[in-house]
Order: sequence, then C-alpha cells, then structure tokens
Amino acid sequence: MKKNDKDQSQGEAPPISFGPLEKRLGYALRRAQLSVFSDFFNAFAQSEIRPAQYSVLTIIESNPGLPQGRVAEVLGIQKTNFVGIISELEERGFVRREASRQDRRTYGLYLTAAGARLMKKLHQTAEEHEQHIADRLGEAEYRRLFEPLRKLADGL
Amino acid sequence: MKKNDKDQSQGEAPPISFGPLEKRLGYALRRAQLSVFSDFFNAFAQSEIRPAQYSVLTIIESNPGLPQGRVAEVLGIQKTNFVGIISELEERGFVRREASRQDRRTYGLYLTAAGARLMKKLHQTAEEHEQHIADRLGEAEYRRLFEPLRKLADGL
Repeated sequence: MKKNDKDQSQGEAPPISFGPLEKRLGYALRRAQLSVFSDFFNAFAQSEIRPAQYSVLTIIESNPGLPQGRVAEVLGIQKTNFVGIISELEERGFVRREASRQDRRTYGLYLTAAGARLMKKLHQTAEEHEQHIADRLGEAEYRRLFEPLRKLADGL
Repeated sequence: MKKNDKDQSQGEAPPISFGPLEKRLGYALRRAQLSVFSDFFNAFAQSEIRPAQYSVLTIIESNPGLPQGRVAEVLGIQKTNFVGIISELEERGFVRREASRQDRRTYGLYLTAAGARLMKKLHQTAEEHEQHIADRLGEAEYRRLFEPLRKLADGL
C-alpha cells in the first residue's frame, strides 16, 4: 500500500493535476460544450427550456411533419430520452403529433401556435447568447471555430 | 391545422434543415464532441473503457488519494453517475478506495497495480487517437483549437 509523495488523502487541498487530459481534444471539447450549454441553460431558464429541448423544437420548426424517429435520429438523441422530451413539450402545449396519412402508425411532429410564439422568443435569446460568445472570443476567432468543428462532427 | 409547403409527413424524405442550429456554436461543439467521443470509444472498445471512465482513471492516476467527491467535482460528473463509474472500476480491480486518516468518512481513490498497467495501455491508445485527429484536421488547425476551447470552458 505504498503511497507516493503526491498522496492527497490528507493535508491542505493541493491543485488538481489533469495529467494527460490537458492534451486531449475530446476533453477540451467536452469542457467547452458543458460551459456553453450551462450558460445557454441560464439564458433560457426563464422559459424553462433546456438546450436539448431547444434543438428538438428548432428541428420541428424547420421540418414540420418530420416523423418523431427522424427528429431523434438527426439530433443523435437516444430514443428513451427523446420520448420524455416530446411528452413534456406536448404537455406544455408547444408540440403536437399528427398521424401520417400514409402510415397511421407514424406520427409527424408540428409546433403549435404557442410553440411558434415560444420559438420566436427563444431564437432572440439564442442570438443574444451567441453574440455574447462571439464577443468573448473575438469575432474572428469565433467564426474560425465552426469549420474545424464541422470537420470533426463529420467523422474522423 | 394548416400545413405549410415544407410538410414532411408524406412523400420521399427530403433533406433535413437544421435551421438556426447551424449557426449555434454550442450545437457545433456538441456534434464535434459526440463524434470524437464515439471514435475514442471505438479505440478503447477492446479494453471496455468509456471516455468518462478514462477521465476518472486519469484524474485518480494524476492525483492519488483524491477524495471521491473531488474527482466527480473536477470532472463535472453528477454524483449519481459517478457512484456507478467508481463501483464498476472497483469491481474490475482497477481502483481501490481507502479511508482518509484524518476523516474516516472520507475515501481517497487510488489505482491498483492492474489499474496502473491498464492506464499505460490506454494512454498509448489515446495518443494514437489524438494523432489521428491531428492528422485529420491538420497539425496547425488542431493545435489552434485548444486555446479558444479553454477560453470557452473557463466561462463566458
């Protein structure tokens, strides 16, 4: 049970070493994403909308009638989580499901009028939040980030 | 129940529009992170280690004896999820907990010898994976990403 001289089970809390994690792009992406989402979450708190809900609402708004399974798929949201998201948005009156005319077992998703009003407000908040990020990073740095991120998203 | 001309409940699947999501840095970060983690996950599949487990193991390796609560905290992992991660790593013989000498209610985390051997292997795989990302993006682009990501992680 030898302990080395970096043992931290006693004494004052020394600074944490992140070791090789510091050099991992995946970890850097994760930390940045969590921070942006947390800030985004605060901006949307008044409307009680979380980032994942905003993504779902935006996809429905931009693709009215899209089958539920496709919405989950394009956003990479697991089915079990997606069911809960849609149920809540339906209960709150922002989203409605309508059976497809071709296949009554398939449901297409639509925004309600209340959902459309909510989105107008959310997009404005999101724009402000986005500008806040751009100001923080500097406009050029901000713009330059999108291309490499898209490359990474498109697969390694 | 008026439907607009983009209605997608019938006919052939048209391309999905991501609408304003395309312009959201948070969304771009999320997509990139998911893709890198998925690739990382595949690289580690042989050892049956997920990215979150690798992060936890690296923090324990770099800070032997760190109390469990602190490990969860520095990685931003929720307590309920963290308990499961540690239990599994303990059962698999990679991590051991040891009560603090000062406060017997607090447990410090350590790698076992098997955990240390595993990490040697994982770091090598992680390095190869990292090089793969750098090759894909180009070394200069890859290196340039870290600073803005750190800025974002440090808060907006």
